[in-house]
Amino acid sequence: MNNKNSFIIDSPLDMHLHLRDDDMLKLVAPLTSKYFSAALVMPNIIPPITTKEALLSYKQRIKEACKNDSFSPQLTIFFQTDYSYEFLKDIKDEIIAVKLYPFGVTTNSETGVASMDVDILRPVLESMEKLEIPLCVHGETKGFIMDREKEFLPIYESLAINFPKLKIIMEHISSEESITLLEKYDNLYATITVHHLMLTLDDVLGGMLNPHTFCKPVVKKPTDKEALRKLALCAHEKVMFGSDSAPHQKEAKECHDGAAGVFTSPIALQVLTQLFEENGKLENLNAFVSLNAQKIYNLIPTKKQIELIKEDFRVPQSYQYKNEEVVPLFAEQTLSWSIKSVKDKDDY
Amino acid sequence: MNNKNSFIIDSPLDMHLHLRDDDMLKLVAPLTSKYFSAALVMPNIIPPITTKEALLSYKQRIKEACKNDSFSPQLTIFFQTDYSYEFLKDIKDEIIAVKLYPFGVTTNSETGVASMDVDILRPVLESMEKLEIPLCVHGETKGFIMDREKEFLPIYESLAINFPKLKIIMEHISSEESITLLEKYDNLYATITVHHLMLTLDDVLGGMLNPHTFCKPVVKKPTDKEALRKLALCAHEKVMFGSDSAPHQKEAKECHDGAAGVFTSPIALQVLTQLFEENGKLENLNAFVSLNAQKIYNLIPTKKQIELIKEDFRVPQSYQYKNEEVVPLFAEQTLSWSIKSVKDKDDY
Repeated sequence: MNNKNSFIIDSPLDMHLHLRDDDMLKLVAPLTSKYFSAALVMPNIIPPITTKEALLSYKQRIKEACKNDSFSPQLTIFFQTDYSYEFLKDIKDEIIAVKLYPFGVTTNSETGVASMDVDILRPVLESMEKLEIPLCVHGETKGFIMDREKEFLPIYESLAINFPKLKIIMEHISSEESITLLEKYDNLYATITVHHLMLTLDDVLGGMLNPHTFCKPVVKKPTDKEALRKLALCAHEKVMFGSDSAPHQKEAKECHDGAAGVFTSPIALQVLTQLFEENGKLENLNAFVSLNAQKIYNLIPTKKQIELIKEDFRVPQSYQYKNEEVVPLFAEQTLSWSIKSVKDKDDY
Repeated sequence: MNNKNSFIIDSPLDMHLHLRDDDMLKLVAPLTSKYFSAALVMPNIIPPITTKEALLSYKQRIKEACKNDSFSPQLTIFFQTDYSYEFLKDIKDEIIAVKLYPFGVTTNSETGVASMDVDILRPVLESMEKLEIPLCVHGETKGFIMDREKEFLPIYESLAINFPKLKIIMEHISSEESITLLEKYDNLYATITVHHLMLTLDDVLGGMLNPHTFCKPVVKKPTDKEALRKLALCAHEKVMFGSDSAPHQKEAKECHDGAAGVFTSPIALQVLTQLFEENGKLENLNAFVSLNAQKIYNLIPTKKQIELIKEDFRVPQSYQYKNEEVVPLFAEQTLSWSIKSVKDKDDY
């Protein structure tokens, strides 16, 4: 029952997630698998997922770490220019998309593509078009930090024009200018994170320096945040929730050389419910966190109902497992919505 | 002798310096006093310098920490709206300027002025005009981090118009727009730091997050850096070198709540020599680091000659004294100019 103090999200989907590996995987996977029906899992572990063997093995490790068969990990492979049609056809049923990283733009992207020249990418992208495999893109150049996404837009445009049957997902869009392009081409879609809806550069370095809000693409201006909020709150049919939750060891964030990534998995649904409620748009939340992605990816999620209630939720200082310790966004702050219960397939 | 491999700076002056207190003072003061003739010392220690007793006591502590009587600390007091003409007259010979901080804009500015309304500031500023005491200003609003200096420019303009005989120093200017205003009013001057000449926001968070390049005002866009370089390299007569070298404990920078400030005292002259040489402007370096400030502040420095040679200087990982450890800008990087020798007054 949805009333002003309670809200049910049906089968939430996180369409951009980093689960890492080893103990970190064991720490973070249950924090997603408990509350989400499925998640699109990024392939930029070390080494990145580029073979069928690595893919199947990683999927198995994820399933073991999740401890929850009502959660379905949707894997991706790391774009390489030499993937053959046969290779892609062979793995098609094991992946939901291929993820493209330009070289060196974010965490573990050192094996990303060196050139975004359409003709270099063409063979693989044409194969993907034929096989109907979507392309997820980290769309940033190596220019000035505040302009990287904007500078990448002509590349998105060129991809959209050259591969009209390819579904292209502009991942974690962070700037107002991306929205105009998103609306211009039928085959462009986008994910939006919690942190790009909630933060600006002021939250990184406007007061003290907060490494736990530092990510790529960096959170931007207040006008960018407002434009993204508008898009998410109306549950624009071309946008989906993708947390880009990206855990790093506390020590790898709080140091002289801090890693990029904001960890939001265990707080995402609470923050989104709070945001949509405060803006009087709760009726659009299910589209943003589930229905839109179902349509865009033709994904039929495992049924799962998350009941949120309007009760304070104190965000933990950190989440720990063995030697891994990860600090979430809004650590030690209080959110106004909590998760009350989860009904998964065994409850129906 | 100045040739292409050797350069002499006469009586360098650092017109914006944080020396802190206690063990930190003992660590950093000698790193400035050895190579500079004088420095304008900021009053935002804890508690800030607002009385004659505190001023004289701090000056004494600085002199003891400097261990060098060829260095002359030029003290400032922390602007308060209730300073009387008599108070300012009484301390005039002990200070070089009054420093104004808007409330809460940077480290230890919690006792800064709550309003920049000219009429609230008028009594003190009119006293300073009469007594010919310059005003140093941290010119930032509390707006979006990248716009704070730009948003403060109308306040500088209002001060310049309302107090035409007051020398107003726009401290650590960081954006292109400030230069236009600087040139518009005869009574506006500016300091420029090493880090605003060398860094952009990319050096803070374009790659990994580097807390040792985080400061207020934050380093900005490449176009801002270029505009500031142009101004410094021509040794514009209204600009002076002011390092804003602002030491913090390593642990206070590399944490979840990092302090703002870049520590540059021990590398400033080497970096500036390298910058001016690479741009073919060594002939302007003495004006930028000494002569301009002498004219603007009517300051006659203790004579001191610093000879720099074109030899690699490996910047230390950190500087330490007892429990204090401070990481300098460009730690563990190699600069192309080193300090070869210092001649102070005893050598003449």
